[in-house]
Amino acid sequence: MSERRTQIVIIGGGPSGLLLSQLLHKRGIQSVVLERKSKDYVLSRIRAGVLERGLLGLMEEAGIGGRMAKEGFAHDGTLISYGDEMFRIDFKELTGHSVMVYGQTEVTRDLYDAREAMGGQIEYNVEEVEIHDLESDAATVTYRKDGQTHKISCDFVAGCDGYHGVSRKTIPSEIRKEYEKIYPFGWLGILSRTPPVSHELIYANSERGFALCSMRNENLSRYYIQCDLTDRPEDWSDAAFWAELKRRLPPEVAEKMVTGPSIEKSIAPLRSFVSEPMRWGRLFLCGDAAHIVPPTGAKGLNTAASDVHYLYNGLRQFYETGDAAGIDGYSELALARVWKAERFSWWFSSLMHRYPEQSAFDFKMQLAEIEFLRSNRAAQQAMAENYVGLPY
Amino acid sequence: MSERRTQIVIIGGGPSGLLLSQLLHKRGIQSVVLERKSKDYVLSRIRAGVLERGLLGLMEEAGIGGRMAKEGFAHDGTLISYGDEMFRIDFKELTGHSVMVYGQTEVTRDLYDAREAMGGQIEYNVEEVEIHDLESDAATVTYRKDGQTHKISCDFVAGCDGYHGVSRKTIPSEIRKEYEKIYPFGWLGILSRTPPVSHELIYANSERGFALCSMRNENLSRYYIQCDLTDRPEDWSDAAFWAELKRRLPPEVAEKMVTGPSIEKSIAPLRSFVSEPMRWGRLFLCGDAAHIVPPTGAKGLNTAASDVHYLYNGLRQFYETGDAAGIDGYSELALARVWKAERFSWWFSSLMHRYPEQSAFDFKMQLAEIEFLRSNRAAQQAMAENYVGLPY
Repeated sequence: MSERRTQIVIIGGGPSGLLLSQLLHKRGIQSVVLERKSKDYVLSRIRAGVLERGLLGLMEEAGIGGRMAKEGFAHDGTLISYGDEMFRIDFKELTGHSVMVYGQTEVTRDLYDAREAMGGQIEYNVEEVEIHDLESDAATVTYRKDGQTHKISCDFVAGCDGYHGVSRKTIPSEIRKEYEKIYPFGWLGILSRTPPVSHELIYANSERGFALCSMRNENLSRYYIQCDLTDRPEDWSDAAFWAELKRRLPPEVAEKMVTGPSIEKSIAPLRSFVSEPMRWGRLFLCGDAAHIVPPTGAKGLNTAASDVHYLYNGLRQFYETGDAAGIDGYSELALARVWKAERFSWWFSSLMHRYPEQSAFDFKMQLAEIEFLRSNRAAQQAMAENYVGLPY
Repeated sequence: MSERRTQIVIIGGGPSGLLLSQLLHKRGIQSVVLERKSKDYVLSRIRAGVLERGLLGLMEEAGIGGRMAKEGFAHDGTLISYGDEMFRIDFKELTGHSVMVYGQTEVTRDLYDAREAMGGQIEYNVEEVEIHDLESDAATVTYRKDGQTHKISCDFVAGCDGYHGVSRKTIPSEIRKEYEKIYPFGWLGILSRTPPVSHELIYANSERGFALCSMRNENLSRYYIQCDLTDRPEDWSDAAFWAELKRRLPPEVAEKMVTGPSIEKSIAPLRSFVSEPMRWGRLFLCGDAAHIVPPTGAKGLNTAASDVHYLYNGLRQFYETGDAAGIDGYSELALARVWKAERFSWWFSSLMHRYPEQSAFDFKMQLAEIEFLRSNRAAQQAMAENYVGLPY
């Protein structure tokens, strides 16, 4: 068995873990990242990419904002349609901020490049990760790799290993309080090498169900339609997808839609989930390990980033001054913002989707809320402040 | 059979009908008000009284704002509590407007006094009201009173006779589209001759259910608690009511609560209801005849007043200039604002009550929304603009 020591073991080599590792490294704090899969696998996962100002700031602090500044697209607003009507929320004018469209995969790639350039320690293809001694003076993490058992002792463990990871489950179940909502529909998404129908995202409420027009770049579009949970991607031909998407959009949008073959097609369920607390002994949870949002409003990666922000600053404070206030307050601080992001994602999802049990009155309430949003500056501002990201 | 003619027959002698009659009279437009009950009965109905600026403007225009200016209480804000926490929404600072606490019964009394002083025609204790010929050149209304049948021919009929009245039901059912939501709880309210616990209203979200601290004047308090639909007022002793009310309020509020015998105790169900259209031929619906809101946020009388505003101005335009645009646009204009008030009342009810099917996640969403409201100025402003009344 190999044995070594580091300051922070980071479980999970997705964007949260890598970002935390990179930020800590720049402050001289050592970490080892353990990733269950290969780097290629991690980089093959397709995720949305609408980045809040807070995450942009962290990327800059981590020294990885360069390519994004060149290749990302700043969006100053978004479009909301309902039936044949459409209006715009002007983020820039309402809040002074924009959001950045830049794929999560690209963020991860930039982080890998930076970690490798700085000699960051990342172990891929690790198995049987176990976390021990969280309530003692030093934690230990064991794992199997290349047929051998490895052991790392450390000051703290950062659990950035997602919903299915080992970190959250290491917290005794009698300590954890979990909150969950499963939405009664999914999102069927396709990627196609076509120019996006709109420069900005279009969130569409339709009697037929929700639709979203999104994009990766000027010739790569990402579209979604609300679908039944029992649907399978193979049930939907490309032609059926495009026809249904167009039916859910105002005519002037549908008419100029450029269609083409899908290069990816998949169905994602929608879930809200929060596990409290986010700290137990020497373990801190970040991102999907502790909470999931439905994708409406693109808060997943951004909320993971806000966890990283609080944890990074808490650890910095601890190592630089010996003051544990930041890490002791981590769970409460992170959760306060998590619940706000959960609320926004739940609200925006509830506003835009059709629900099986929805009455005619309930549908009228959605339309009335959308029309209130259209007509009321304060409502637009509250929405925009959430969308560009509440302050840390 | 007696026969006569007027310009407008107003069915229902509650505040909407009386206000419309008074406003029309001041512009030289004749009306007859038909009321099923006696004046004493109408004045015995206890209703909340938080009046929006729009209604205050109409009362001034109708020349009946004098007593209210002396006896009413301007409220510049309201308090919202959740668990042991409480914060204030400052209407005045956020919107420049206040609301007026002045009982609906007092508004009705002032309107009766004004109608009588001006010789307004009000028929009490009418029975078997029927509306005819709505699609012809002149409408007629028949009714029985004192053993005799009476007939009034008129240009238009204003249906101000509430949810159970004859007016809405006169519109053929194939024309009407009705939207409804029944809430799975009621409000148990008491009136007591005690000083209000707070100068301003307190809306309380508690794990035990909603509570509201309201008042009529400095020595007359009105308190409500959310109760089961199967509860009966006689199931609740005064002592049980006060104890439960206090449990739903922050300790610093509960401690200073002055209790006393109830002088009225009743349970009201909560309902959202809208019937479209609000005009059919020569008939116009106003207020509860066309729509009901749950009482959270006090939009019932205020939304009836906005109908009166649109109808009064449409009729004025018609009689003064011959232009029917205002009455032809009445249903659409009135409904646009009705749906906004319905949305606000539904939202505020949904935010503050416990629901039988509510999950732990759903309760967290309520708390997150209340905390967002507490911390976000734009959210407060959107709430305050609704509470003081959206512009006509």
